Amino acid sequence: MDKPQIGVIGMAVMGKNLALNIESRGYTVAVYNRTGSKTEKVVADHPDKNLVPSYTIEDFVKSLEKPRRIIMMVKAGKATDATIKQLMPYLEKGDVLIDGGNTFFEDTIRRNQELDNSDINFIGMGVSGGEKGALEGPSLMPGGQKEAYDLVAPILEQIAAKAEDGKPCVTYIGPNGAGHYVKMVHNGIEYGDMELIAESYNLLRNVLGLSNEEIAKIFEDWRSSELNSYLIDITADILTRKDDLGSDKPIVDMILDRAGNKGTGKWSSQSALELGVPQSLITESVYARYISTFKDERVAASEVLPAPKATIGELDKQAYIEKIRKALYFSKIMSYAQGFEQLRLASEHYDWDLKFGQLAMIWREGCIIRAQFLQKITDAFERNADLKNLMLDDYFKDITAKYQDAVRDVAALAIKAGVACPGFTAAITYYDQYRSAVLPANIIQAQRDYFGAHTYERTDREGSFHYEWYHEE
Amino acid sequence: MDKPQIGVIGMAVMGKNLALNIESRGYTVAVYNRTGSKTEKVVADHPDKNLVPSYTIEDFVKSLEKPRRIIMMVKAGKATDATIKQLMPYLEKGDVLIDGGNTFFEDTIRRNQELDNSDINFIGMGVSGGEKGALEGPSLMPGGQKEAYDLVAPILEQIAAKAEDGKPCVTYIGPNGAGHYVKMVHNGIEYGDMELIAESYNLLRNVLGLSNEEIAKIFEDWRSSELNSYLIDITADILTRKDDLGSDKPIVDMILDRAGNKGTGKWSSQSALELGVPQSLITESVYARYISTFKDERVAASEVLPAPKATIGELDKQAYIEKIRKALYFSKIMSYAQGFEQLRLASEHYDWDLKFGQLAMIWREGCIIRAQFLQKITDAFERNADLKNLMLDDYFKDITAKYQDAVRDVAALAIKAGVACPGFTAAITYYDQYRSAVLPANIIQAQRDYFGAHTYERTDREGSFHYEWYHEE
Repeated sequence: MDKPQIGVIGMAVMGKNLALNIESRGYTVAVYNRTGSKTEKVVADHPDKNLVPSYTIEDFVKSLEKPRRIIMMVKAGKATDATIKQLMPYLEKGDVLIDGGNTFFEDTIRRNQELDNSDINFIGMGVSGGEKGALEGPSLMPGGQKEAYDLVAPILEQIAAKAEDGKPCVTYIGPNGAGHYVKMVHNGIEYGDMELIAESYNLLRNVLGLSNEEIAKIFEDWRSSELNSYLIDITADILTRKDDLGSDKPIVDMILDRAGNKGTGKWSSQSALELGVPQSLITESVYARYISTFKDERVAASEVLPAPKATIGELDKQAYIEKIRKALYFSKIMSYAQGFEQLRLASEHYDWDLKFGQLAMIWREGCIIRAQFLQKITDAFERNADLKNLMLDDYFKDITAKYQDAVRDVAALAIKAGVACPGFTAAITYYDQYRSAVLPANIIQAQRDYFGAHTYERTDREGSFHYEWYHEE
Repeated sequence: MDKPQIGVIGMAVMGKNLALNIESRGYTVAVYNRTGSKTEKVVADHPDKNLVPSYTIEDFVKSLEKPRRIIMMVKAGKATDATIKQLMPYLEKGDVLIDGGNTFFEDTIRRNQELDNSDINFIGMGVSGGEKGALEGPSLMPGGQKEAYDLVAPILEQIAAKAEDGKPCVTYIGPNGAGHYVKMVHNGIEYGDMELIAESYNLLRNVLGLSNEEIAKIFEDWRSSELNSYLIDITADILTRKDDLGSDKPIVDMILDRAGNKGTGKWSSQSALELGVPQSLITESVYARYISTFKDERVAASEVLPAPKATIGELDKQAYIEKIRKALYFSKIMSYAQGFEQLRLASEHYDWDLKFGQLAMIWREGCIIRAQFLQKITDAFERNADLKNLMLDDYFKDITAKYQDAVRDVAALAIKAGVACPGFTAAITYYDQYRSAVLPANIIQAQRDYFGAHTYERTDREGSFHYEWYHEE
């Protein structure tokens, strides 16, 4: 075997799969895990692979070709700092350390700076696609020193997923925390996509009264529409599956309605709040998961809080199925418009010079939000690299103009029927806010000036003004 | 003059007014400001008052009766830390230092711990009511050592606003950062109240087509309804005011629709996200302010993004005015329900043992959100101190049951008319989520288990399960 060209630390499923993916492209891969038995097992399970195990950090580092290329796939947080501390005595100037964990971007900014002070390159790399993606081809979002990226680019381009046009789903994202930030917003968008699908299902099931089988067919149809995407694919599949624990019911009817989260959606919303970005759809999606966890409270409340009195008349089901499809696509566009607005403002704030069209391009395959639709975003930024909001691009403008009435119908119906659709209502609300030349924020500024002398701006001249509210005219 | 019983640091308007308020209750007050000329001016402007100026921190501290009671009214952040650092050499065991600034609660937790290590008491105190409140009687939210609170309680009770029943609007909130946390949520609720009023105005103006004069009369009417509150009062007043810079128009028509913020609403939402609280109404209110600042983008978008095609037929204006009133009250209840849910979960998380009924009680006067309505919240927690959500209390349950149809009408109308009402839609959405025994989060959990093996819970038994999605049946 050659001297390993790259090493992977952390032999949990993501690290193991990434190592096997790299090995499958013709590389020899050094592998290390804090608990040696895991390393032994990985090597024993794959006797024909070019994997070189080490059982101390020192041996692991020394086994590598220079400049060393090391990918850490350990639990984000303290384990990452501990691993870096163990590595530091053995690393040399010019080595490239990559953190492929789900790391908070501010930690990556800090670590990049700390290691840079010792001339060690540090890349924070978002990895999307789950276990299967790690093994077969993920979408990769590496941020850090550009010269360090160039040293690992040949490997990353080989292991990444390939889009329809053959292009690898990886590109240099930007300095320090840019990669992990983009991955965080990717995950926020993923929360939004999932919430919108769940709301569509809810309307089809509980307002139109369709069966799981009928809904499965609708999602199957939607796979060949502009909605075509991985999450629509798997939802269509999920809806056809039977319980595997003997109930003979569809599995979705056996799954408890309590959604977990790993915090990346929350980070995304907290950052939007910090940067002043109106990112309501992702935030509502995070809150929808939160309220789902209040299961006991909800069950108790359902017995005392009444449903709406008004009854929904007979609905044209076929017409409403198509309206829901349009509402879903429209709302997805609003979610991405907000997500890219967040990326634009983050890029300015952190001085990252993000290339928005390329981000959409590397999300076309490998990652959870992969979709035909992403090509439209790439196209939009190719038409205009300075596009302020996706809604202003011709393609999206035309679609939203055509679909807005469907969303309004669906959202109004949901509100009348008492079926919560926080994603759909956030979407149409954002559209209406964004296209409002005048909003009622004049009232808010008047109030702020009244009780706190916070001043106000005027419609007829520049400057800050205070009105003498306490002096009677 | 007596030796000062208390001192105030920071002679900007809030500090000055608080010092004058204390002095007016018969105390002698030591005053200090980093820039001495400000102190000189305050003393010169109020020659008959028992104010004792100092021009060094040392003189200021030494001028005070022991144990010393010092209120800092300086800009939150670095200035607070700098002031504490200057004070420390002169403070003694048992002295009480109070930070009355708009401080982030985590800073207060840290400072309380740091000073406690030197046996100095540290109280973080939320002060609401603006300049006028500081002078005439604010609502005060002090958190820190209970024994320190007891040393300052007689003074705080005298300077605080008095509610209708004569009770002072101050109480011991809880340990370390509890006071500043409660003030932060108060401010978040204030954002919500202001947004809901702005949305009501927007509907009255732009859907019902009423004039400012007509809307002023409506708000005047609402003052004697269950909506009675300070913010409704000032809005009624604001709507009657003419421009003072010569345009002869109502002042609201001259105020630019770009709302500022000082960050407390944002903190409140970020904390809700951190704690897992579905606090959508306040968050939408923060986002509404953010999007208002995108004025240039909005004006450009208004020219290319079309309004809804559907036209709104003739509306019964009187009926809709009453529906909007009901929608406003219903939505306000949802906002407070979320705010108190946040306080409940924060109290558990930080181990503060907050007394929710008392919080509502001290907000009845002095502060910006003061309202008749707050008595209803106090009553609810008196009926049941363990109330999980305001909606489950009999009074609120009855109101929301009666008003829900009005909110649904108003929200659906707004969506059809293309007038964004993020607060109203968040309110009815939250109501419908909370009263849903079953939400579509089963779909989200299925997806998460599909792409990430995140496991799911079941409706028929305890435990975590994984479905073998990749094995065909």
